[in-house]
Amino acid sequence: MKRTVFFISDGTGITAETLGHSLLAQFENIEFDESTLPYIDTVEKAEAVAKEINRVAKDESAGGRPIIIDTIVDKKIRDVISAADGYMMDVFETFVDKLQTELASQAVNAVGKSHSIIDNKSYNVRIDAVHFALDNDDGARTKHYDKADLIVVGVSRSGKTPTSLYMALQFGIYVGNYPLTEDDFDDLRLPASLREHKHKLFGLTIDPIRLSAIRNERRANSPYASLSQCQMEVRAVEAMFNREGVPFIQTTHLSIEEISTRIMATVGLKRRSL
Amino acid sequence: MKRTVFFISDGTGITAETLGHSLLAQFENIEFDESTLPYIDTVEKAEAVAKEINRVAKDESAGGRPIIIDTIVDKKIRDVISAADGYMMDVFETFVDKLQTELASQAVNAVGKSHSIIDNKSYNVRIDAVHFALDNDDGARTKHYDKADLIVVGVSRSGKTPTSLYMALQFGIYVGNYPLTEDDFDDLRLPASLREHKHKLFGLTIDPIRLSAIRNERRANSPYASLSQCQMEVRAVEAMFNREGVPFIQTTHLSIEEISTRIMATVGLKRRSL
Repeated sequence: MKRTVFFISDGTGITAETLGHSLLAQFENIEFDESTLPYIDTVEKAEAVAKEINRVAKDESAGGRPIIIDTIVDKKIRDVISAADGYMMDVFETFVDKLQTELASQAVNAVGKSHSIIDNKSYNVRIDAVHFALDNDDGARTKHYDKADLIVVGVSRSGKTPTSLYMALQFGIYVGNYPLTEDDFDDLRLPASLREHKHKLFGLTIDPIRLSAIRNERRANSPYASLSQCQMEVRAVEAMFNREGVPFIQTTHLSIEEISTRIMATVGLKRRSL
Repeated sequence: MKRTVFFISDGTGITAETLGHSLLAQFENIEFDESTLPYIDTVEKAEAVAKEINRVAKDESAGGRPIIIDTIVDKKIRDVISAADGYMMDVFETFVDKLQTELASQAVNAVGKSHSIIDNKSYNVRIDAVHFALDNDDGARTKHYDKADLIVVGVSRSGKTPTSLYMALQFGIYVGNYPLTEDDFDDLRLPASLREHKHKLFGLTIDPIRLSAIRNERRANSPYASLSQCQMEVRAVEAMFNREGVPFIQTTHLSIEEISTRIMATVGLKRRSL
């Protein structure tokens, strides 16, 4: 029996969902059936949601009344939800009152402020960083590396591209990435094109068994995906990182978010966009 | 005078930062100086943070004692922060106790659960979706469109690529994107390669003045970036969307998060990854 959870918002739902995931992750023994309901910004939409909450609450095959985590700003809309038969944790009611007192200021009670962009500059930085990541993906070009904040290096399928794109999209950071291949492993020295940017390099490494599984998804039963090939490449790339003094991180059990934020924390990179 | 805010976490900091942004966005009259401090996972690191909090609190040029929004799980570490001279809003203390009662279950109190990946399947889907977005970016290929959940169409620099990548990275959704250019505007009909996938199309449109500004960042004073060119293209693309019955969204004042989540809400797409 799964416990139903609704993340409800009058905006994107990102805040309610992000917070909700964090909280629920603390309860490993319970299975949750999670739904995000964004843009619930009218009383009519809220009434439809309340009906659904009540339906689940009455459903004996559900694991209890639904949990509701919401970031609805408008009290009229919120009241419709809170009248339904769920267990509601209201984020704004919980925190905004307290903040009003501490800041001695009135909240604007405006909807969807957090992820709406008025700031074109911040938007432009993120977009520009995304295009930088694309133009400098997979070693496609190296001549723009002087503009890069960071150059992620590692073997094929160690997570370079998603990491680069995540940092660009979320933080407006300019990240190039460069694949290290067998050709680079002869003398365990950095390729010439990377040497002058050594201070910007950050390495990714990964467990060979996991790497082989990932590569097999892409090219099943190829020499490229074989465990022996993956073991050879990972051993060589780690030796190179150590020899050249390139900081690196073991990505095997990390999410893209963790890889990105750990690298940023390690090298002291701060977000460039809000 | 800016009010200092610290988002503090023993994990990535994403939850504290996301929630914090949402809350602070409700106070438009106050300027905030925001810092995210991730991976504060030892008492020693917490003590360094507490020192910094106290320094700011004593600083007369700061706008008051710091605001602290934290998602630290370990009470020992949290206690060090809460002993410092800040105004602390503790997310887990606020909500986890309540959830324990409602769920009749004990929280595991494990650090950084939310953004850590144990679920390889969810990770693989996101990575695969990112590579799909890259392979099918900017109309590069159209033969894989049968695998796409969605095909985003619009004029150059209307936000197709960042939107596609965001949906892939955050939600594991397979999104191709295809640029509509002058060649497509003669008869205001969809290009042949899109026609059979019409039910998957979603259009982006944008204010021509904003489009011209964005294009000027890329190619200053080019015909491509001229206001008249942008006006012509936007008028044509909107006429085409209307004529062909392609749903579309005005992106001018929207963030990437909003564009993505609004499209998903409109067409009823759900995340494929956690």
